[in-house]
Amino acid sequence: MSILCVGSVALDSVETPFGKAERVLGGSAVYFSAAATVFHPVQVVGVVGDDYPIDDLDFLAERGADLSGIERATGNSFFWAGRYHFDLNTRDTLDTQLGVFADFEPKIPPSFRDARFVFLGNIDPKLQHDVLDQVVAPEVVACDTMNFWIEGSREPLLDLLSRVRILMVNDEEVRQLADEPNLMKAARWVQDRGPEIVIVKKGEHGAILFADDWIFYVPGYPLEDVFDPTGAGDSFAGGFMGHLARAGELTPASLRQAMVYGSALGSFACERFSVERLKDLTGRDVRDRVEEFRRLTAFESHAMAEEHV
Amino acid sequence: MSILCVGSVALDSVETPFGKAERVLGGSAVYFSAAATVFHPVQVVGVVGDDYPIDDLDFLAERGADLSGIERATGNSFFWAGRYHFDLNTRDTLDTQLGVFADFEPKIPPSFRDARFVFLGNIDPKLQHDVLDQVVAPEVVACDTMNFWIEGSREPLLDLLSRVRILMVNDEEVRQLADEPNLMKAARWVQDRGPEIVIVKKGEHGAILFADDWIFYVPGYPLEDVFDPTGAGDSFAGGFMGHLARAGELTPASLRQAMVYGSALGSFACERFSVERLKDLTGRDVRDRVEEFRRLTAFESHAMAEEHV
Repeated sequence: MSILCVGSVALDSVETPFGKAERVLGGSAVYFSAAATVFHPVQVVGVVGDDYPIDDLDFLAERGADLSGIERATGNSFFWAGRYHFDLNTRDTLDTQLGVFADFEPKIPPSFRDARFVFLGNIDPKLQHDVLDQVVAPEVVACDTMNFWIEGSREPLLDLLSRVRILMVNDEEVRQLADEPNLMKAARWVQDRGPEIVIVKKGEHGAILFADDWIFYVPGYPLEDVFDPTGAGDSFAGGFMGHLARAGELTPASLRQAMVYGSALGSFACERFSVERLKDLTGRDVRDRVEEFRRLTAFESHAMAEEHV
Repeated sequence: MSILCVGSVALDSVETPFGKAERVLGGSAVYFSAAATVFHPVQVVGVVGDDYPIDDLDFLAERGADLSGIERATGNSFFWAGRYHFDLNTRDTLDTQLGVFADFEPKIPPSFRDARFVFLGNIDPKLQHDVLDQVVAPEVVACDTMNFWIEGSREPLLDLLSRVRILMVNDEEVRQLADEPNLMKAARWVQDRGPEIVIVKKGEHGAILFADDWIFYVPGYPLEDVFDPTGAGDSFAGGFMGHLARAGELTPASLRQAMVYGSALGSFACERFSVERLKDLTGRDVRDRVEEFRRLTAFESHAMAEEHV
């Protein structure tokens, strides 16, 4: 059983202090699939223009992505250009051209409609609704969004929450959505509207999963060279959902592991431009990094001596 | 064998969205001692004016602090007033009056001079040097500093690093000190100048310990109500050094545990104004929170299945 993923399939031009990449593979569906297929097959739905180097997606097909849901339309592909600052935590958007993405109406191929795991990338909440309307009986729906929709499409987004089991957003977004600066309270606010799981991505500071009565915190992997942070969040989502689909069930254990796999894939995504590092990952790379995450946080907690209070 | 702590003994007036506290106990030496004495005796060196409610420090003496190094001078005590914003991550300083602290010259009582563990709170690096000049053979010297000294007293601060085994600063400070945005590289830069351990405190995002060839990351404890973050960093330092002194040695295991104890104490400090929460802590409170830190980050990492790459 595949994961259904709907999102942008884009071309990015990215400048960082370390170099430049021009019109390279990008978009939430591409990063998500590049990460998720490390663990589990993915069915991709999106749209590209006639300028898209579609053969460059062959590596996804080779490791289990079904790309038959990527529509080819006449016009230009979604294009984004950005420049990262010296500290790589902030970036300026230099150009955004929606192209054929402006009229995107996700059409889920019949063979994709029995998906159990669904990832709704960051697109118009109305389209996210349309996707779910076409899926017969999704069990695990995860959803991303952004400030643009939180401000401009608040009602459809709030309606969507009741159809979503896992919301994945960054810290700024969950605070804005709930109008609440405290992350725990903001997560609780979201949970009251549907999602049982809220994942807050905090970039270099890691990610927190809020469940009903427990919390899991995975730190950001300390990278000596962050080459290009573009797509780290979608790669996180791909690693997370890919592992969950492989595990086949949502348990505290599988969710905790999924957070670590997500963080591992997010960290790999930052090591090269575009999906380059995700392309040449090996199982050994992934297992080694997961083991590094364990060493990063493990401690012995037997009492050393009594406290003085 | 006690920990020697040198720092400010102050009065704070603090406003948060939740309330106001006027002229309450504050200062790095007070928060540090309130946290460290949970684990180990502390010898405190500082200065107060004749307006200081010295009896309010009795609770420290009761749990093993030797306050005989706190000098009483004529004049006003160090006073700081601040107001936290709605999100509690930013604050405005409303008033700073150095008072008798302006002429502070740390005099280490003879009975304190054989200290093995020394914590140099955030004071003028020249005074931090003076303290070390008076200690016979310190084994573990930990030191805090701030942007004011990094800018204004760079040379004495860099000299100090060669006498320090553990530098504890926040992320902004280590980046400024090393003139390097990448935390790992900044920590390495510091290590090249002396300290074998660099601890980077990141507030709600936790803290990272950089050792020679390993890293430990303790997340911030997710608090539903951050009441007053004042002193969280010094409470972290106190919990950290208090546990290390109790353990009696620096090993990877004791350092990892110390990071968790430090974070636990830092999180408690935020739950009430001033040192109120640290005053009434029980050993059970501390052990429970350490166990919560374990649950927050623990995951099983046995392979669920092979990766597809």
